Amino acid sequence: MVKLNPHFAKLSTYFLYPEIEKKVAQIKAKQPGKAMINLSLSDITKPLSPTLLAALCSASQEMGDRNTFRGYGPSQGYAFLREAISYGEYRHLGISSDEIFVSNGAKCDLSHIQEIFDIDNRVAICDPANPVYLDTTILAGRTHEANEQGEYGGVQTIPCLEENNFIPHPPSAPCDLIYLCSPNNPTGTAMDRRSMRQWVDYALDNQSVIIFDGAYEAYISSDDCPHSIYEIQGAKEVAIEVRSFSKTAGFTGLRCSYTVVPKELRANLNGSDVSLHSLWRRRHDTKFGGVPYPIQKCAAAFYSPEGNREVKEIIYMYQERARFLVEGLRKIGLTAYGGRDAPYIWCKAPCSMTSWQFFDDLLTRLQIISVPGPGFGRRGEGFVRLSAFAEPSQLAEGLLRLKNLFKI
Amino acid sequence: MVKLNPHFAKLSTYFLYPEIEKKVAQIKAKQPGKAMINLSLSDITKPLSPTLLAALCSASQEMGDRNTFRGYGPSQGYAFLREAISYGEYRHLGISSDEIFVSNGAKCDLSHIQEIFDIDNRVAICDPANPVYLDTTILAGRTHEANEQGEYGGVQTIPCLEENNFIPHPPSAPCDLIYLCSPNNPTGTAMDRRSMRQWVDYALDNQSVIIFDGAYEAYISSDDCPHSIYEIQGAKEVAIEVRSFSKTAGFTGLRCSYTVVPKELRANLNGSDVSLHSLWRRRHDTKFGGVPYPIQKCAAAFYSPEGNREVKEIIYMYQERARFLVEGLRKIGLTAYGGRDAPYIWCKAPCSMTSWQFFDDLLTRLQIISVPGPGFGRRGEGFVRLSAFAEPSQLAEGLLRLKNLFKI
Repeated sequence: MVKLNPHFAKLSTYFLYPEIEKKVAQIKAKQPGKAMINLSLSDITKPLSPTLLAALCSASQEMGDRNTFRGYGPSQGYAFLREAISYGEYRHLGISSDEIFVSNGAKCDLSHIQEIFDIDNRVAICDPANPVYLDTTILAGRTHEANEQGEYGGVQTIPCLEENNFIPHPPSAPCDLIYLCSPNNPTGTAMDRRSMRQWVDYALDNQSVIIFDGAYEAYISSDDCPHSIYEIQGAKEVAIEVRSFSKTAGFTGLRCSYTVVPKELRANLNGSDVSLHSLWRRRHDTKFGGVPYPIQKCAAAFYSPEGNREVKEIIYMYQERARFLVEGLRKIGLTAYGGRDAPYIWCKAPCSMTSWQFFDDLLTRLQIISVPGPGFGRRGEGFVRLSAFAEPSQLAEGLLRLKNLFKI
Repeated sequence: MVKLNPHFAKLSTYFLYPEIEKKVAQIKAKQPGKAMINLSLSDITKPLSPTLLAALCSASQEMGDRNTFRGYGPSQGYAFLREAISYGEYRHLGISSDEIFVSNGAKCDLSHIQEIFDIDNRVAICDPANPVYLDTTILAGRTHEANEQGEYGGVQTIPCLEENNFIPHPPSAPCDLIYLCSPNNPTGTAMDRRSMRQWVDYALDNQSVIIFDGAYEAYISSDDCPHSIYEIQGAKEVAIEVRSFSKTAGFTGLRCSYTVVPKELRANLNGSDVSLHSLWRRRHDTKFGGVPYPIQKCAAAFYSPEGNREVKEIIYMYQERARFLVEGLRKIGLTAYGGRDAPYIWCKAPCSMTSWQFFDDLLTRLQIISVPGPGFGRRGEGFVRLSAFAEPSQLAEGLLRLKNLFKI
């Protein structure tokens, strides 16, 4: 008799986005005349830039010609893209093109990477954080059941709170696998060099591995925030870095990301010293068939001078929107974090409201859609996440509605 | 201290294709004048058909326009594609569009599907078979170490031999998870209705789940071979079907497949009766970001009358090549199976040669590249796999060389 994965039963059945959608639908039905302002977006709103589009279309065209079409590609990604990434992102950091694995989304890699590790590893996860870290840790069987507070035994929670400026600090207990995300979703905060240094030292001391989620790297504008964990000396011995073209080059609908596994990263396997790179390559070859050729050509166009200039303009536009929104919120008198090095703003619920109370207030009184903080973990309580992907007119209208409500 | 997945050490380090490539390179260096005939191909050689190409290019173009571009899509796949598959493939079998999950390759789904099952399930795998079934079973920790014969304890081997016409038959012992592939890679043989009925009955009796790999379904021409396992009454209660556009519509470089998880398929999870569909959907949502929009539009174009006609012509061409090759081999006096319902031919090594001896002979004397049978399992010994993806002129030249060698 077949037996199902018992860890599925441990997953929270708390469905954040369906709950948000249900409430939004109710308000739309009740107040059909009022236009919604959607500040809950985690998706980009700008189309592909002209140079990237041209690369996508031209590579697509190649697929119809017997002299140029491509069948199976290398599972690790075409050399033209890996070399472009190696030069474009890491030329000063000494990451070679064969340490880069092209993949179909940061979400996939951030979860699949767990497969190269033993079940019996203690995982550290920030709270609040992208739910994918915890959910995939649960599904892999690395946690116990959740307790009444919704906390899972076997996982080390790293709190990111107002008190510590939302910067994660290494715990006193040793952990084996550590998920870090900077700039952070949802808090919009990026780690500075010093705090990243602390983590690399911690990992070196404890022989841990850091899984570094750098999906929002392109949004960093603070000088002291490293764009890559490999800017920290020693990180190549302890860190895997996952990056994405989704929020960088507008690929949310095209699915392309990459993962760096440095060859210096080694650990013990049955008494032998093994490179994690060889395990991940084997996993990639065994279970993954590569990213579509036209998508890889499109990603490579990001590293052309024209493509890079166009995309940086788009990122700059989103950055401007984030600054406009966070400064506007502060002027109104709200407490808001982030928005400087990330497209997200972590806005504190005023008057000791809970996240959901503030969410409901914003929705029913102002028709503004936000994301309640507990969707990212228990320590997201008291906050909502706002994002800067909406059009400037929407942001301005949202701020105006807020200003009228708060009457300042 | 981080611990690595110990099951990686159990994987065979036998690298079939690198070994083939090494030998081919040696011969090329020794005999630079002689043209190679590559009959080892598992990749298509025809470009995308005009209608599918037009759909790919037009959807790519949409990505550059703010009014038409798509960001995150549904992780299960766009409704337009799921509905096209449901109607185009399953309208007589009652599989609805929400039982279909669009994915980025059969290889991925065939391995990831294991995640919804407990580690403690006995897996049945045919020998010979696509190595992905066994390798992912090993990586998941469902086997013991390999013995001296390279057999893994904990796995039930289902032999597919000349004696049973390469048709797998249910074992006497109960198994929980069963990988079946029809038409089969590498033997080129398809299961008939009676043998598929036996497996469905076995699974119903033992409460097992069949993971049915139907990647070569489009190549079936025998009337008595079901195209889908759901043609067998009761299969919806026991079978998951994985299909691919790779060998059907020329998508090896574009990566699109789909998996059917019928809602009738249920099993026990911690005392509750649970639908496997809900677990797979949760897994999809958690770990997968969907297939690129232009790729899904391209796949949907296969279900347009024009697209379907074009693709069927291409398949017909490959089928003709397979028949030409298998009949040619037989005329020469070789024993060859398959080629009627699959693009693969399973050719017996003559004169009691081993697979590798025959491979070497073909390569060094005739410059013909084949795939030695043991690459697909121990019981592939004594055979090589030949494929019909090569150009007709190549097939004819290959047969001519063989004919001269065997002097018949």
